[in-house]
Amino acid sequence: MPEFRVAIDPADWVCPLPLRETKRIVLGHGGGGVLSEELIENLFLPAFGGAAGPARDSALLDLKMGAAAGRVALTTDSYVVQPLFFPGGNIGDLAVNGTINDLACSGAQPVALTAGFILEEGLELEVLGAVAETMGKTAANAGVGIVTGDTKVVARGGADQLFVNTAGIGVVPAGIHVGPERVRVGDHIIVSGNLGEHGVAIMSVREGIDFGTVVTTDSAALHLLVAAMLDAAGNHVHALRDPTRGGLVAAAVEIARAASVGIELDQARIPIPETVWSACSFLGLDPLQVANEGKMVAFVDPGHSEAVLATIRARPEGANAAIIGRVVDEHPGMVVGKTPFGTTQVIERQLGEQLPRIC
Amino acid sequence: MPEFRVAIDPADWVCPLPLRETKRIVLGHGGGGVLSEELIENLFLPAFGGAAGPARDSALLDLKMGAAAGRVALTTDSYVVQPLFFPGGNIGDLAVNGTINDLACSGAQPVALTAGFILEEGLELEVLGAVAETMGKTAANAGVGIVTGDTKVVARGGADQLFVNTAGIGVVPAGIHVGPERVRVGDHIIVSGNLGEHGVAIMSVREGIDFGTVVTTDSAALHLLVAAMLDAAGNHVHALRDPTRGGLVAAAVEIARAASVGIELDQARIPIPETVWSACSFLGLDPLQVANEGKMVAFVDPGHSEAVLATIRARPEGANAAIIGRVVDEHPGMVVGKTPFGTTQVIERQLGEQLPRIC
Repeated sequence: MPEFRVAIDPADWVCPLPLRETKRIVLGHGGGGVLSEELIENLFLPAFGGAAGPARDSALLDLKMGAAAGRVALTTDSYVVQPLFFPGGNIGDLAVNGTINDLACSGAQPVALTAGFILEEGLELEVLGAVAETMGKTAANAGVGIVTGDTKVVARGGADQLFVNTAGIGVVPAGIHVGPERVRVGDHIIVSGNLGEHGVAIMSVREGIDFGTVVTTDSAALHLLVAAMLDAAGNHVHALRDPTRGGLVAAAVEIARAASVGIELDQARIPIPETVWSACSFLGLDPLQVANEGKMVAFVDPGHSEAVLATIRARPEGANAAIIGRVVDEHPGMVVGKTPFGTTQVIERQLGEQLPRIC
Repeated sequence: MPEFRVAIDPADWVCPLPLRETKRIVLGHGGGGVLSEELIENLFLPAFGGAAGPARDSALLDLKMGAAAGRVALTTDSYVVQPLFFPGGNIGDLAVNGTINDLACSGAQPVALTAGFILEEGLELEVLGAVAETMGKTAANAGVGIVTGDTKVVARGGADQLFVNTAGIGVVPAGIHVGPERVRVGDHIIVSGNLGEHGVAIMSVREGIDFGTVVTTDSAALHLLVAAMLDAAGNHVHALRDPTRGGLVAAAVEIARAASVGIELDQARIPIPETVWSACSFLGLDPLQVANEGKMVAFVDPGHSEAVLATIRARPEGANAAIIGRVVDEHPGMVVGKTPFGTTQVIERQLGEQLPRIC
């Protein structure tokens, strides 16, 4: 199993901010004055490697869509995960990968991200710097720019350390249509890999629980995986969904309801690591409802599902992918699981959530 | 003077949420389960009038840029203003107008907005509903859609009531280039109307101060004003800036630094209402550094500044516009004010801010 690893240890990180004596965020960092500018110029711009300076209100992009233009995808997510650093990652890579994955699940290739921070007065600049550096590196690895941003500061007690919002735009290639409205009876359902790791990683560090082995977050960007799937099967890939909050169950129920179809899951085929099973049984969680941050559920024409599965498994982020179920014309709007014992059960979403502040 | 008016009084507003018995936000509203869906379907979608349902990760847009494509502008802002409701508006119209104005100041016409909410457990659903309804109406009035969103909930004490992030995309017409790099020595500086009203409106209600008359926020969308200015003078409009946090001074200093020019302001020509003057003197604030939410500073070729001024004044949001200064080749990066007494003074930004959580 992978070792416990915080992506960037704040203790090892030297804040590049030559900023008056403070080592902590003060209200003035959100005031639009000299301190705001120093924060942008000395912390965010080096971290994000960007050219968008403080003297411009918006980033300007040439989407290069050409005459046979595709469509533009637009998405947003706020991140409030606690703790900020956890095995395998921190709030920064979560915020970048999560928004990239929302774009990817619409069939879009990401083009640019925004970063909006809400900071609590007193936050250590080193923590902010480590998060920003992770965001910059994660975005650069994904080939996406963080092109504009915003910072607000609230008084101590008005927020819990650091929240970040990322919005993203991407381009859906001309002719590609991915969405729940394209799901058909007979479609095979593929999950791109092991489920439950992100939620268990957060809970283990939050509760200080030692499961013997360490489960790390699966946080990863999936846009290249989607590009490969669309290359392999085009519009035979009908719908994509990232099973984040609410896990696989929420993703499946939402598609079932949106497409007015039934979904049947072979529970024995769903890839759940032994460590996730044991942690979930200890914590009283359902691994099918635990959040993932680097996984995808695909609804694919049955004539192309084996080819798509092979394409997914050929990529490192798609190891352990499996066909876990199919779309049926019975019980529209409902998800039914076939248990390993041959019985079936209705799988329903929870009212609220098992794990607050998981992303 | 206008009366004190909260745009939508939460007390008059009936929450459309038929939601289990709760009248308040619970953690489960951010959990991605049934409660999240109910919140989206029963509160956000009716308020925003949108078609983007919960079963889609991104909104898909046809930007219709055609072959002679313009550029795409992308921007983001988070809003943490306290109190949430204040004379003339609330956090909702601020969040919509602010992001529209950031796009407009890049020369872009807005196309779509995102809405990301971070909610404190225990927030009254009526308050959220009133804010969302204001956002929907403000966006509809501006001809812009709120096309996708996200909601996170943190435990009581983890955030202060309600924060909202709006990101926006817009299209800069082909051939239009507005930005600080286009500012030239000799440019006239136009402000589109009275300064200081937003900050004073917030402070009056926050501190419970009665100035005899009520100052209301100037929150307004400025994209149609920008379109008219560009129609009238095209690229003779060199740069635009909305003087929000840090007010006119921050906007002027940022342009002076970005363009490496000097700026000279005729202080007697700057339109500041008597009520703002008296409130600022009472509160110890500099009206030139108080935030505005519906004003713009334009840097315009001197041969076209009178035409642009006339265009601005012809619109209701441009009443009281004035030419307040010019760009000079002396003291690059600095802003100098000519006082009514014929003397000059260097005008410098503050280190931090006069008014925390003003937007």
